Amino acid sequence: MNIINPRLLKGFRDFLPKEALKREKVINLIKESFELFGFDPLETPSLEYADILMGKYGEEADKLLYLFKDKGERLVGLRYDQTVPLARVIAQYKNNLPIPFKRYQIQLVWRAENPQKGRFREFTQCDIDIVGEENLLADCEIIACALSTLKKLGFKKSKMLINDRFIFEKLEKKYIASIDKLEKIGEEKVIDELNKKGLSVDKAKDLLKKIKKAKKTALIEKLFSLLEKFGFKEEIDFQFSPTLARGLDYYTSTIFEVVDENYPFGSLGGGGRYDNLIGQFTGKKISAVGFAFGFDRLIEAIDYLNLIDFSQTKTKVLITIFSEELKDTSLSLAFRLRSQNIKTEVYLNEKTKLEKQLKYADKKNIPYVLIIGPEEKKNQEVILKNMKDGKQRKLKEKELVELLKK
Amino acid sequence: MNIINPRLLKGFRDFLPKEALKREKVINLIKESFELFGFDPLETPSLEYADILMGKYGEEADKLLYLFKDKGERLVGLRYDQTVPLARVIAQYKNNLPIPFKRYQIQLVWRAENPQKGRFREFTQCDIDIVGEENLLADCEIIACALSTLKKLGFKKSKMLINDRFIFEKLEKKYIASIDKLEKIGEEKVIDELNKKGLSVDKAKDLLKKIKKAKKTALIEKLFSLLEKFGFKEEIDFQFSPTLARGLDYYTSTIFEVVDENYPFGSLGGGGRYDNLIGQFTGKKISAVGFAFGFDRLIEAIDYLNLIDFSQTKTKVLITIFSEELKDTSLSLAFRLRSQNIKTEVYLNEKTKLEKQLKYADKKNIPYVLIIGPEEKKNQEVILKNMKDGKQRKLKEKELVELLKK
Repeated sequence: MNIINPRLLKGFRDFLPKEALKREKVINLIKESFELFGFDPLETPSLEYADILMGKYGEEADKLLYLFKDKGERLVGLRYDQTVPLARVIAQYKNNLPIPFKRYQIQLVWRAENPQKGRFREFTQCDIDIVGEENLLADCEIIACALSTLKKLGFKKSKMLINDRFIFEKLEKKYIASIDKLEKIGEEKVIDELNKKGLSVDKAKDLLKKIKKAKKTALIEKLFSLLEKFGFKEEIDFQFSPTLARGLDYYTSTIFEVVDENYPFGSLGGGGRYDNLIGQFTGKKISAVGFAFGFDRLIEAIDYLNLIDFSQTKTKVLITIFSEELKDTSLSLAFRLRSQNIKTEVYLNEKTKLEKQLKYADKKNIPYVLIIGPEEKKNQEVILKNMKDGKQRKLKEKELVELLKK
Repeated sequence: MNIINPRLLKGFRDFLPKEALKREKVINLIKESFELFGFDPLETPSLEYADILMGKYGEEADKLLYLFKDKGERLVGLRYDQTVPLARVIAQYKNNLPIPFKRYQIQLVWRAENPQKGRFREFTQCDIDIVGEENLLADCEIIACALSTLKKLGFKKSKMLINDRFIFEKLEKKYIASIDKLEKIGEEKVIDELNKKGLSVDKAKDLLKKIKKAKKTALIEKLFSLLEKFGFKEEIDFQFSPTLARGLDYYTSTIFEVVDENYPFGSLGGGGRYDNLIGQFTGKKISAVGFAFGFDRLIEAIDYLNLIDFSQTKTKVLITIFSEELKDTSLSLAFRLRSQNIKTEVYLNEKTKLEKQLKYADKKNIPYVLIIGPEEKKNQEVILKNMKDGKQRKLKEKELVELLKK
């Protein structure tokens, strides 16, 4: 027989139970936070017609799209972000949607990037957007929800860096993508990149100097005074950052990115206002503002800062099988515990030695093990072993249920 | 400006909030049920090397794989089911996994099928599997968990149809896929299909006759006596079904499919034992048994039978903004309600007429609306409007919080 080499594509990952449980826990916290602000969920398909996706993100990003021809010879692409699909959804269902439309979306996106530490080809984004509301209150609400979500996750020094795309008004779009890399790759490399894109080194240096010195625009002033009313403090919760550019083409005015002082490895998410994107599908301007967390970065930061306790399994107890004769006793106890909503695993082989069954519980990190031998059966008792401290106690079933339900 | 036609690929779907919330609610119930039986979550990537996927499902299924070349000229494919990726995972991490390995997986799969009513190209599967346990108790546990999950979802007449692949032992694999269609397309068409695949009409008729009359194998007898011990009843909860074939190549012995008498439009899920699949990746036999719910079929059946109450939004209350002057009052109330864990939306435009704000709440099906006018502000009260019966009452904030927390 030909053996197939079991392997993953570069940039793609498996999430084994421990990791999957961790991710689920964080996603649930994020959802709760989004819902607290009145956002409802939306899901869009993984595949879209290629023309829906292309030409929205900018040249560099377009190259990273997963495009291919399907069996019907249609050119299709995998979701690259959740904003362009949202724009399509708005155009497609606009008469049936409440406007403003507030939705969150937590799905996978795919980008054919060069995989490197912390950068993947398949990853999860967590987006919130408000569509159809020009009022700056919408920008504030998005920023408030993002900051509040980080607080819920345990981050203590989150700060929203904020800028206005108006600052780059006279700049060609291709240069903006380079300026966006300032924080990540440093001034020298940005100048180099701008130079390669056609700007002389002197002009590139001048440009960066000018941007660094830029003053708050009228929009920023107004936004900041609103954010103060929302209870946030300048320099602590939010801050003007004239060099913040955001790489994507579709942003039109407010742009922002959130960092945490205690996590010095880059931003946790970003967003902004994109008042012209949806119009590409509707022919009519519909304003929108949104924010996306990079979920993997969040997980990395939560791990780094040790913000949340994670468990390795949700199973509360393993019921062992003492012997062939006592199999039914164990099976029926499992049935009763489950009907009490206790997450119960029963060992599925009566021939396996008790010691091996215990080792299995240990490897899975199941907190409790139950043993029912002939004596226990006779006395209508069970032995409960706490796998953390190794202590055993005999219990009646009623006591057992009470203890496990805690 | 060129306007891009907003549209979906055939067989792909958007889930707007109402639908997304429904799906989420059902998925959470399924997860809870799976976890009650000691299954932990696993996630695998959407894309795999093509050779991981090909040749596992059978000829007909292979044609439905989404295959394409990525930018590195690797032939890759989108996940077709969750069993083959599980087999790869077992082979890849076997030394670090607890054996038996019990996992659930709820992710998307893609199949280039001809879209038709209730059949999609992107859909969700809900799988449970037990790997590394030959004992028939594992088959029982899988069947018990599947039946228990349906009960939790409100199904009342679920029955597991069960067969043994041994019944088709001497049959070529290509014929099994046709026999599997017996329930769906009827005897005549199956005979026609078998004929096209090389069997004479007479032989095809004989074959079907023989299969229909087949008796329980020793395996089935043993399984059924165990299922009785699990508390299930033959003919009510489970039943021998010699014509049940299951389309996929990888099944080796027990196969099963669940139906509900009240929902006459096909099975809700199916599974079986596949003791040779994982060996294709490890070179060493590792037995396994599993089950998958077709999630879309479940949703369809839940809707058809009206089993679950769904809400259109999770938002509990919309706070309106009475006027520019009272904006801050509304915003700060939103802040306080959210800190009490009440899902609160605040209307984000102080210039919108109150009537329009109320209409928005109505369109979104938000159950309560709050109004704070100058008089209410003075008296430190709020007006709470119940959007179902239209009744209004004045409340102090403490009373409001109590009411909304209920």
